[in-house]
Amino acid sequence: MSDKFYSKENLKFLLHEVFHVEELCKRDYFKEHTLENFDMIVEAADSLSTNHLRPILLEMDRNPPYVENARIKVHPQMGKLMKKFGEDGWISISAPHEFGGQQVPFTIMQAAAFIMAAANYSPMAYAFLTTGAAHLIEAFGTKELQETFIPKMMSGEWQGTMAMTEPQAGSSLSDIVSTATRTAEGHYLLKGQKIFISCGDHDGCDNIIHLMLARIEGAPAGTKGISLFVVPRMRPDKNGELVFNDVHTAGLFHKMGYHGAPIAHLIMGEQNDCHAYLVGEEHKGLSYMFQMMNEARIGVGVSATAIASAAYYYSLDYANVRLQGRKLTEKDPLKPQIPIIHHADVKRMLLFQKAMVEGTLALELQACMYLDQSKTSTGEEAENNFLKLELLTPIVKSYPAEMSIQTTSTALQIFGGYGFTKEFMAELFFRETRIHTLHEGATAIHGMDLLGRKVMLKNGQATMLLMQDVFADIEKAKQFESLKTYAEALEQKLTQLQELTMRLMGVAQKHGPEIFLSDATLYLELFGIIAIGWQWLKQGAVSEQQKASASKKYSPEFLQSKLLTLQYFFEYEMPKTEGLLVRLKSRNNVTVDAKPEEIV
Amino acid sequence: MSDKFYSKENLKFLLHEVFHVEELCKRDYFKEHTLENFDMIVEAADSLSTNHLRPILLEMDRNPPYVENARIKVHPQMGKLMKKFGEDGWISISAPHEFGGQQVPFTIMQAAAFIMAAANYSPMAYAFLTTGAAHLIEAFGTKELQETFIPKMMSGEWQGTMAMTEPQAGSSLSDIVSTATRTAEGHYLLKGQKIFISCGDHDGCDNIIHLMLARIEGAPAGTKGISLFVVPRMRPDKNGELVFNDVHTAGLFHKMGYHGAPIAHLIMGEQNDCHAYLVGEEHKGLSYMFQMMNEARIGVGVSATAIASAAYYYSLDYANVRLQGRKLTEKDPLKPQIPIIHHADVKRMLLFQKAMVEGTLALELQACMYLDQSKTSTGEEAENNFLKLELLTPIVKSYPAEMSIQTTSTALQIFGGYGFTKEFMAELFFRETRIHTLHEGATAIHGMDLLGRKVMLKNGQATMLLMQDVFADIEKAKQFESLKTYAEALEQKLTQLQELTMRLMGVAQKHGPEIFLSDATLYLELFGIIAIGWQWLKQGAVSEQQKASASKKYSPEFLQSKLLTLQYFFEYEMPKTEGLLVRLKSRNNVTVDAKPEEIV
Repeated sequence: MSDKFYSKENLKFLLHEVFHVEELCKRDYFKEHTLENFDMIVEAADSLSTNHLRPILLEMDRNPPYVENARIKVHPQMGKLMKKFGEDGWISISAPHEFGGQQVPFTIMQAAAFIMAAANYSPMAYAFLTTGAAHLIEAFGTKELQETFIPKMMSGEWQGTMAMTEPQAGSSLSDIVSTATRTAEGHYLLKGQKIFISCGDHDGCDNIIHLMLARIEGAPAGTKGISLFVVPRMRPDKNGELVFNDVHTAGLFHKMGYHGAPIAHLIMGEQNDCHAYLVGEEHKGLSYMFQMMNEARIGVGVSATAIASAAYYYSLDYANVRLQGRKLTEKDPLKPQIPIIHHADVKRMLLFQKAMVEGTLALELQACMYLDQSKTSTGEEAENNFLKLELLTPIVKSYPAEMSIQTTSTALQIFGGYGFTKEFMAELFFRETRIHTLHEGATAIHGMDLLGRKVMLKNGQATMLLMQDVFADIEKAKQFESLKTYAEALEQKLTQLQELTMRLMGVAQKHGPEIFLSDATLYLELFGIIAIGWQWLKQGAVSEQQKASASKKYSPEFLQSKLLTLQYFFEYEMPKTEGLLVRLKSRNNVTVDAKPEEIV
Repeated sequence: MSDKFYSKENLKFLLHEVFHVEELCKRDYFKEHTLENFDMIVEAADSLSTNHLRPILLEMDRNPPYVENARIKVHPQMGKLMKKFGEDGWISISAPHEFGGQQVPFTIMQAAAFIMAAANYSPMAYAFLTTGAAHLIEAFGTKELQETFIPKMMSGEWQGTMAMTEPQAGSSLSDIVSTATRTAEGHYLLKGQKIFISCGDHDGCDNIIHLMLARIEGAPAGTKGISLFVVPRMRPDKNGELVFNDVHTAGLFHKMGYHGAPIAHLIMGEQNDCHAYLVGEEHKGLSYMFQMMNEARIGVGVSATAIASAAYYYSLDYANVRLQGRKLTEKDPLKPQIPIIHHADVKRMLLFQKAMVEGTLALELQACMYLDQSKTSTGEEAENNFLKLELLTPIVKSYPAEMSIQTTSTALQIFGGYGFTKEFMAELFFRETRIHTLHEGATAIHGMDLLGRKVMLKNGQATMLLMQDVFADIEKAKQFESLKTYAEALEQKLTQLQELTMRLMGVAQKHGPEIFLSDATLYLELFGIIAIGWQWLKQGAVSEQQKASASKKYSPEFLQSKLLTLQYFFEYEMPKTEGLLVRLKSRNNVTVDAKPEEIV
């Protein structure tokens, strides 16, 4: 079996033809880049992934992190890999030049992250968590904090983390109780504990730098009293020597997958000597965190799609070589068996995976483009792109995550009994991807964010702007005879979605938030399906253009495969909106009405 | 947290009120039994499960079987447990008196199996695999085979297995190549290999008795040339001493869950000394096997539901104690957090699980009742019940298995980040249940069995008979005002299903089997949803009766919970038929038309 874990041809098709990333280079912030340059980044990610990440995937799964002498031990390669992520410029890829970064568009960074996560999800998490943590210091930290921490983080010597969750404060971040006390020296003394801190401690780096949420003594209750701090495991003393900063590793959670990266339980301030350095202003921590949240959330979607991609190619490869059964019209048992890819149900299972992998990847890159366009423009353009990004983010975070559970399960199913065994890797992808509906906000949270906030953001302007883009793509698709039916189908779905949304706004006014938001998870699923339909229609139009063009950049099989998968999506996935619409229109409120004691 | 893994109240509600199992006692074959007796069996299963099975679930998961000196080592308790399964009469529970059995109805046996599998799936597999293997010898073996093997199997001293799969013959059983050669002494010499043999070797029993499919030299090709043999690991020689029978353990597959039971790779006849004893007539092996298949397949459905049940109660318990967030109408962050069961989306996730657990369990018991009624009657009654059983079997095998993947995933989701960790057992149930869509025929095989064979069995008589039962239950439900809407909804769905089926029969005639059966998996899902809707309506009518009755056998919460879950099912699950109907009616044949090389 081959070891393909993603399609470079598809990734380039999306970047070049569908999203025209080269147009980003016209923007001042990205002016040093070219399309060739972006392609080189993709090649570099491919090479790193193929040569360094994929080969240790299985090893990492079989040898999860463990605790020794109150420190977490990870795969011995991780230290070298983090240095490599630093030296090769991955950690600093999107950072501004002033911080030693390369100002690469977020879209290209995520394309690279996609390749790495498809090869082996865990190692890239160490790198891009550090990027995200450094990013907060870049944006909101003092010059001193920036000089002290950013260079070592960019080089991969120091690990960065996001430390938010506490035992009593998971989905409910407002319940954070870790406390920071002001000192005369300017720093704060931190006391508290954090759980589920990814890469929160490990022996692959010299130091761990936590971007940590805590409440300053006397701060207002709730989300308005949360501040952001840099809390290093080892702090530089006056002479620049590193001394232990009273951040203890209290434990390690043992996960069902994603074994390459540890999640730690940390306790701060047991000796009352945990120095914390305020980032930005007091009580504004959550708003800083949220400004980075869109990026982190798109990252989750990309990782979920990446693991789904690995599972898809793994099962596609197997379906092409595994001989079992014969055509249903072939009754002679002496005829040789055929590869299972000839069976319609196996093709259905493969097309389902492909439709989701390439559809969600497109949607993710779409969100990345909005982000890059927003970040590098001003006024209305910045605002409009930001609004579209805000609207898409909960969908891009959650829909791929939910679908990745289903598609990796489908990949496993293609292996028959072998799928249940560790002799093949199908079960690994199934375990690995299960994290994505949980971290960075569980699906229900994003459903409520979408329906309760984003859809009506700026009086519905976010939705209106996104719809304009979708309708423009529908018009483009209508130019192709083969796509007309699908363009019209999508048009109809958009109308249904808009009608439903208006109806639900009426419910909100009449019945209050609880009934209004009770099926927000289903609303997100509905919106997700329609959004993926949009991305397939868009890819369909580009595929038809490419078929007709003289360039022959893409093979006929590649383009035909796109058009088949589009058909599959509209035939098999889009109809799922029917049931969702029936339910979302119903005003039977069984889940709200049911009393806890009546669920037995 | 409590350790509830099933609801005894619900099980009794189904057995007593919904299926009236006491009526089985009027039949001659079951005449020694009473309802009290059945209840005692349930109590005994409960006690065994609580005291002996559940306590070692986690240990078994953490310590999977391993190979030592070419033998498979399993959990040290398994030997004692097998003896206990024997001594307490579990292995022989359904066997006829003449073989030392207790002639307990299959329905009651499966109720007991449900409890055991909910507690810990693996150990009960050892026991009931032995029951199934012994059953084949009882039904088709010679007196000598019966006397030699059955007593030791019934006592739990000897393990029984079903040995069908070979590396090249999984779904395609007709491709079995293991060969049996006649000898002058009457026995056959067997050569070949088998894979995925559950409990195919282990150190908990003194001997392993394989019921094995092989092809006698010169036999016709395909399914018509397969014979059934008893192939013991150790064979009794002329003096009754056990000697090694040339059955080698070539390996052990490492599974992602279901760790308590090993699956073995066996090689027979390396020294040309593997004696095999023919069961029944030559070349009829597959037909014998298939006569036991309905039982084995119902068993898979029951096990899938059982694991889903364990996950449901585990997550229900957590939802009642885990504090997180506040009511959406409560803005004061100083107010205490509330148990997450108060959130509508968590209630939705719980009701989904409950609807599937209790809905599929009901359908399974329904199939068991048809089996018992068919087995203990003659003429038309036997035939009619058998036809309904045949029709339901692929659904009962596959729909609960598919749903168990989803519901255990939902249980895991309720735990948030903790769900991904081994600090809780949610991830264990999610891994454990993944086997059920794979063994005893993958879902696609059952889809084709349902649509390609069962629906039109005896010119559609099977379907007609089942529909009569469903319509009778609809009429009963219509007597209750609260159920009228749902009764009518189900009626409409049945009409749609029948119309679709007729339409698909037209497709078969016009376009041949490949297009006809291309969406058989979706057809099974559609039929499955409607069948579960039937079982909920049936339970709804009984619940209303019980509410009105003076007996007060069931608590008001229990009955209210039933009616709420029925509502949930018709509001959230039944609408999923809408999308399936759209797709199943479409004549776009993308999965058939797509060429393998176009899936890239």
